[in-house]
Amino acid sequence: MPQSFHGRASDDELNLIDTYWRAANYMTVGQIYLLDNPLLREPLRIEHVKPRLLGHWGTSPGLSFIYAHLNRVIRARDANVIYVCGPGHGGPALVANTYLEGSYTERHPAVALDEDGLRMLFRQFSFPGGIPSHAAPEVPGSIHEGGELGYALSHAYGAAFDNPDLVVACVIGDGEAETGPLAAAWRSNAFLNPRRDGAVLPILHLNGYKIANPTLMARIPEEELRHFFLGHGYDPLFVQGEEPRAMHRLMADAMDRAFDRIAAIQREARSGAAGSVQRPAWPVIVLRSPKGWTGPREVDGLQTEGSWRSHQVPLSGLADKPGHLAQLEAWLRSYRPEELFDAAGAPLAALRALAPRGDRRMGANPHANGGLLRVPLEMPALEGHALDVAQPGATRGEATRAMGSLLRGVMEANAQAANFRVVGPDETASNRLQALFQTTGRAWMEELLPGDDHLERDGRVLEILSEHTCQGWLEGYLLTGRHGLFSCYEAFIHIVDSMFNQHAKWLDASREIPWREPIASLNYLLTSHVWQQDHNGFSHQDPGFVDVALNKKTDIVRVYLPPDANTLLCVTDHVLRTWDRINIIVAGKAPAWQWLSLDAARRHCAAGIGVWEWACRGDPDAPDLVMACAGDVPTQETLAAVQLLGQHLPALNVRVVNVVDLMTLQPAEVHPHGLADAAYDALFPPGVPAIFAYHGYPWTIHRLCYRRAHHANLHVRGYREEGTTTTPFDMTVLNGLDRFHLVQSALERLPALDDAGRTLQAAMDARLAEHHAYIRAHGQDMPEVRDWRWLAAHGGVSP
Amino acid sequence: MPQSFHGRASDDELNLIDTYWRAANYMTVGQIYLLDNPLLREPLRIEHVKPRLLGHWGTSPGLSFIYAHLNRVIRARDANVIYVCGPGHGGPALVANTYLEGSYTERHPAVALDEDGLRMLFRQFSFPGGIPSHAAPEVPGSIHEGGELGYALSHAYGAAFDNPDLVVACVIGDGEAETGPLAAAWRSNAFLNPRRDGAVLPILHLNGYKIANPTLMARIPEEELRHFFLGHGYDPLFVQGEEPRAMHRLMADAMDRAFDRIAAIQREARSGAAGSVQRPAWPVIVLRSPKGWTGPREVDGLQTEGSWRSHQVPLSGLADKPGHLAQLEAWLRSYRPEELFDAAGAPLAALRALAPRGDRRMGANPHANGGLLRVPLEMPALEGHALDVAQPGATRGEATRAMGSLLRGVMEANAQAANFRVVGPDETASNRLQALFQTTGRAWMEELLPGDDHLERDGRVLEILSEHTCQGWLEGYLLTGRHGLFSCYEAFIHIVDSMFNQHAKWLDASREIPWREPIASLNYLLTSHVWQQDHNGFSHQDPGFVDVALNKKTDIVRVYLPPDANTLLCVTDHVLRTWDRINIIVAGKAPAWQWLSLDAARRHCAAGIGVWEWACRGDPDAPDLVMACAGDVPTQETLAAVQLLGQHLPALNVRVVNVVDLMTLQPAEVHPHGLADAAYDALFPPGVPAIFAYHGYPWTIHRLCYRRAHHANLHVRGYREEGTTTTPFDMTVLNGLDRFHLVQSALERLPALDDAGRTLQAAMDARLAEHHAYIRAHGQDMPEVRDWRWLAAHGGVSP
Repeated sequence: MPQSFHGRASDDELNLIDTYWRAANYMTVGQIYLLDNPLLREPLRIEHVKPRLLGHWGTSPGLSFIYAHLNRVIRARDANVIYVCGPGHGGPALVANTYLEGSYTERHPAVALDEDGLRMLFRQFSFPGGIPSHAAPEVPGSIHEGGELGYALSHAYGAAFDNPDLVVACVIGDGEAETGPLAAAWRSNAFLNPRRDGAVLPILHLNGYKIANPTLMARIPEEELRHFFLGHGYDPLFVQGEEPRAMHRLMADAMDRAFDRIAAIQREARSGAAGSVQRPAWPVIVLRSPKGWTGPREVDGLQTEGSWRSHQVPLSGLADKPGHLAQLEAWLRSYRPEELFDAAGAPLAALRALAPRGDRRMGANPHANGGLLRVPLEMPALEGHALDVAQPGATRGEATRAMGSLLRGVMEANAQAANFRVVGPDETASNRLQALFQTTGRAWMEELLPGDDHLERDGRVLEILSEHTCQGWLEGYLLTGRHGLFSCYEAFIHIVDSMFNQHAKWLDASREIPWREPIASLNYLLTSHVWQQDHNGFSHQDPGFVDVALNKKTDIVRVYLPPDANTLLCVTDHVLRTWDRINIIVAGKAPAWQWLSLDAARRHCAAGIGVWEWACRGDPDAPDLVMACAGDVPTQETLAAVQLLGQHLPALNVRVVNVVDLMTLQPAEVHPHGLADAAYDALFPPGVPAIFAYHGYPWTIHRLCYRRAHHANLHVRGYREEGTTTTPFDMTVLNGLDRFHLVQSALERLPALDDAGRTLQAAMDARLAEHHAYIRAHGQDMPEVRDWRWLAAHGGVSP
Repeated sequence: MPQSFHGRASDDELNLIDTYWRAANYMTVGQIYLLDNPLLREPLRIEHVKPRLLGHWGTSPGLSFIYAHLNRVIRARDANVIYVCGPGHGGPALVANTYLEGSYTERHPAVALDEDGLRMLFRQFSFPGGIPSHAAPEVPGSIHEGGELGYALSHAYGAAFDNPDLVVACVIGDGEAETGPLAAAWRSNAFLNPRRDGAVLPILHLNGYKIANPTLMARIPEEELRHFFLGHGYDPLFVQGEEPRAMHRLMADAMDRAFDRIAAIQREARSGAAGSVQRPAWPVIVLRSPKGWTGPREVDGLQTEGSWRSHQVPLSGLADKPGHLAQLEAWLRSYRPEELFDAAGAPLAALRALAPRGDRRMGANPHANGGLLRVPLEMPALEGHALDVAQPGATRGEATRAMGSLLRGVMEANAQAANFRVVGPDETASNRLQALFQTTGRAWMEELLPGDDHLERDGRVLEILSEHTCQGWLEGYLLTGRHGLFSCYEAFIHIVDSMFNQHAKWLDASREIPWREPIASLNYLLTSHVWQQDHNGFSHQDPGFVDVALNKKTDIVRVYLPPDANTLLCVTDHVLRTWDRINIIVAGKAPAWQWLSLDAARRHCAAGIGVWEWACRGDPDAPDLVMACAGDVPTQETLAAVQLLGQHLPALNVRVVNVVDLMTLQPAEVHPHGLADAAYDALFPPGVPAIFAYHGYPWTIHRLCYRRAHHANLHVRGYREEGTTTTPFDMTVLNGLDRFHLVQSALERLPALDDAGRTLQAAMDARLAEHHAYIRAHGQDMPEVRDWRWLAAHGGVSP
């Protein structure tokens, strides 16, 4: 293949780009300010101006400048480019550009390419009943709102993985560049294989200021900035100035050099042997331009262009300040709207012709509406991965190890489509998902050494010790139409609470937008969970992510607590088939007793909640007591408690209810999985005491159940923030979730305690004392606890 | 002052340091493995070995190597140094070193300096009833557990601010270096003034591997690593190898160069004029040494030293593998314990003499037990900052602006002590705290330009667009005995959820440790809150941080929702006087009606909850209805609703209850601020319907109140995840928290609706319809809503 060459931009071309840029800037100011008179065909009067001025001007002209130059490159090379806008606050710039290229009107036909359409475009912006002020899901071509800063670059890399023809242009504001998640994401280049993946072109936009402050990246010496990029393995290209004509030339040349370099990297990587690919120095463009570029130089005698004062609305209080109104009109007219729009009020055809065609327009690129490209995963049969469970509690297994086997199957079945990734912070093996490594490795573009463990240039597992980067990559991957799973230590998933919130809000808003096609669900496996952090101690114990998740719109979120391996397989199989949701699976990795055959697991998971008949004692249809459980360790302790109760109080009727799908507990009118009250009351009869052993914080169950009829009879045990480095069973004892405390809880709530009951209560005290003494003497749990087993056919150990 | 010179380490000195290091390594292995036979004075038998092996060997020898070399420098220079251990998993190394220097035994006298003490030291580690496996609060000299990675460097900088004589040595593992929070914290050097603040000496420890993977920083080309540090403004010193003798020489020289450089920087900065100080290139040491250094080279034929296989316990399953037991004994004996301990089993006096003396020992340095140094803040009288509120609802004010005035007073009153800082992500002025800038500026060591707004070399306000860094700085500052406040947009405080969790756990554990003195509370101001994010839209709306906080131990957490400026002042005054807590204040910055005079605010805040007599209608002692509220906007809407009810249903007795201290809602047995049931029932009579307008998610109130007698009669309104860019009042309408919906809620719960009630209900529907039409036509709220006011003496607008 010959060296690509795409002639330098001509002066005429640059002049036209400048006109295009003026049009975008005009429309940006128009959106922020104008209710009417959109073409300024009459003098500007105060009634043409919005009464409340909302929006962010400062970043917008730079965003449009970049957009216009990307358009040129796309056309010249027929390049496949999407635009990730880190400074998403500059929403009006994105709206203006997509309107100019026509994609906006295709998505929102009422906003036509004429004066009425322009009026509506202006009026709707940040206006009640209109569109949000940021690059929200309503904006064509957006996969990234940029409301909360930090995630642009990890989103961009996520979009580029497995999209070899795609270039993801990623604008990073110098404010965002101060955040931790952004700082960590620079190193994503160590995971991007130029042979297999697309390219990310980061464009660091130094406009110098945040809300009220200079930015760090804009004030460090330029030499230091150059070291910064070399120190992250990039090849920086600098574009700086403020005179538009000179800047257009610099930017056009930098874009050409960047795209030439990307093409050269990919050509080289794709021509040699797969294993020989090295991590290249990808280009990055550093654009230094004034904040609020082309806006008012000064307002009320204070510098505004090139200052933090142009961050939002440079001119305000127009009703009381005629001078400001005049200044606004002069500002708008400085873009010469009469040269930008035709008689009908449409942008001039010559300008619209500068945009790429069809799907090459960044607002119409299907990668930025990933649901268009989403292909359901091929799912292997579960039979090949299930554990053989002939009877409950007779065999042990590691739940996540079975899940790893299934994930290997998924990876293999979709190898051709190359649309499935597993991400995590260096814990794939630690979390027992290592069967994956039988079919793929960990992606790694840095140096390889003998003895490295499943590091591969082509690995499909992504591991970096940054939960933020993992989450950002996966979001970017899903938003561009692919599938994946994030496996994480349960406690540390709180690191991405805020990213979770943002993604949930994105999904919620997207579902109201008819042209946004559904994307695959964001799936979490939370493991190495609170009850298995006896070794790492208190800092690693936090089951509260579910509480963060439950605050979001209920139909977005699902929470699954499979009690064993086969239920985990069923849940995993289910979530990988879903879309537009966030699925949280909490499951342990430690060897544990298995309860359900694959068939039984399928039935149980389909219901989400149910009576475990085989575990009940006496007549489960007339229970004296309900013992409920959600989570693997709580299930084990509940069954052990039921065993103790059954042995010592054989006349007691005990019903065991297991909950896999936490959402079933909510009222049916609150959540689509919520049980109707009648079905719920049938499981938890209102007059019958219920002891609920829950994996997480106990009040979570109260929060879900407080409107249920049995609520006054519901007693929940869970993690109550007690923990240290100790034994596994002691973790449950510290929190009152162990079998002995559960038995005592049950006895306390049963009406009249007979002799047998009193004897059992005392025995539980004795057992707990014995436990404390034993672990302090031996450093491990009592044999009766370590070796406890539940067998349907037999009794177990005596208390 | 002459150039300092502290002669090069002699070979004898380095030999002794090597012996010391051997002792620390021996004791590290001993802690992980040994129950008994601590001096190996008899052959190692399986019964000497712990049955469960827990701990992290891999990082530990490097940590001890650094500790020993810091000891030398401290002694040679009488330096004041604390040790922040990013790889806190290497807890046994820190325990070993503090035992060697004697500080451990001073804190834990039972762990004496003899054979019995050594046995106890070994046995207690990661053992039930013993000590945790990490550098938890139990470890003398620790201010940083390092359980969750990412915060070492921001903690270190926080410790260094305003401590001009302190050097904070900060070990950063190459795993941690991949995290976002750590990556962002490198730029803390832009805020550290060498004239006023101490120094941070980062020591990047490249041991090459995480749990199962190489680290990025260890695999990038060395030249790239050098660029990385130059690109962050540091001056890197490289120490690499594995042969101990050579490494001791390299490390001693690097330490000397680093400390010489620090001294030179400080001398220069402190000799010139205050304003002339420039940000220097501080030294950083890059230590590249094998993971599990000096441990088993191979285990079962697989490389272990210098590999991820030495991350935790290199040899395991000893009971079943006699070869491993023998290998463990050989490993232990390789440190030649017979040369390390005297006849009684104490470390040789010659070794102990290598440690610094008294408070210079890093385990005894009072800065690492900051409560020892904590001086209560001088608090100015509130009178000078309070708003004049002659009657409720007659004047407007901005609550956080008044708070800014108080904070200015605090800053001034404590200027001499230099022990108070305000941190935030570029939002101090945006959050209306700008009165602070009348007395201090924003710290900034980068380039200063004309027109910069209150940037100062000596500024005491710290602003960086990284919530992680803000939180880490403040934690480090508090842990070393100072005071502060973090002001943040409410939605984005979720970014630090996990850091909050870790700090809460640290406080919880510390309170059980008698020698840990209380530190000042961590105080948050959450503002630009959900109801004032009408302009930024959905992505900026999340009041759920309180829910994360409520999961932690209840006595650690306080949540305050002051309804106006004077209550905000009282709450701020209170929290700045407290210790060992995390105080969350949620307050708005927008102009709003004021309710309470300073005296009334003091009484109300002292109670935390109470009836607002002046706002009640009819006979508040025999209420037909309780209208409760928590938060500024809910309070306003509740009072407007009460006004509507009073005008239209004059016979109705309405009690208004306002909640400032959310913890009062919990039962007294759950939280120290919780009301006893009798007091609670007096406020909320069980048979009376209560409409509760809450700032955040409604189920939070249910979670706190579900055990209260009136719970079945409690109806809560709050944020239910509905929002976009719209008007302020529309935000409340979207979520059913507005006055019109509140009136309807009340009417729905009152027994029999008469004609007046039905008329009012219809009027509310009409008002809501009018609202929707108005905002869509005008882009702002109806005048009756914008201009609404509550006046004690008069009626207000009609519905």
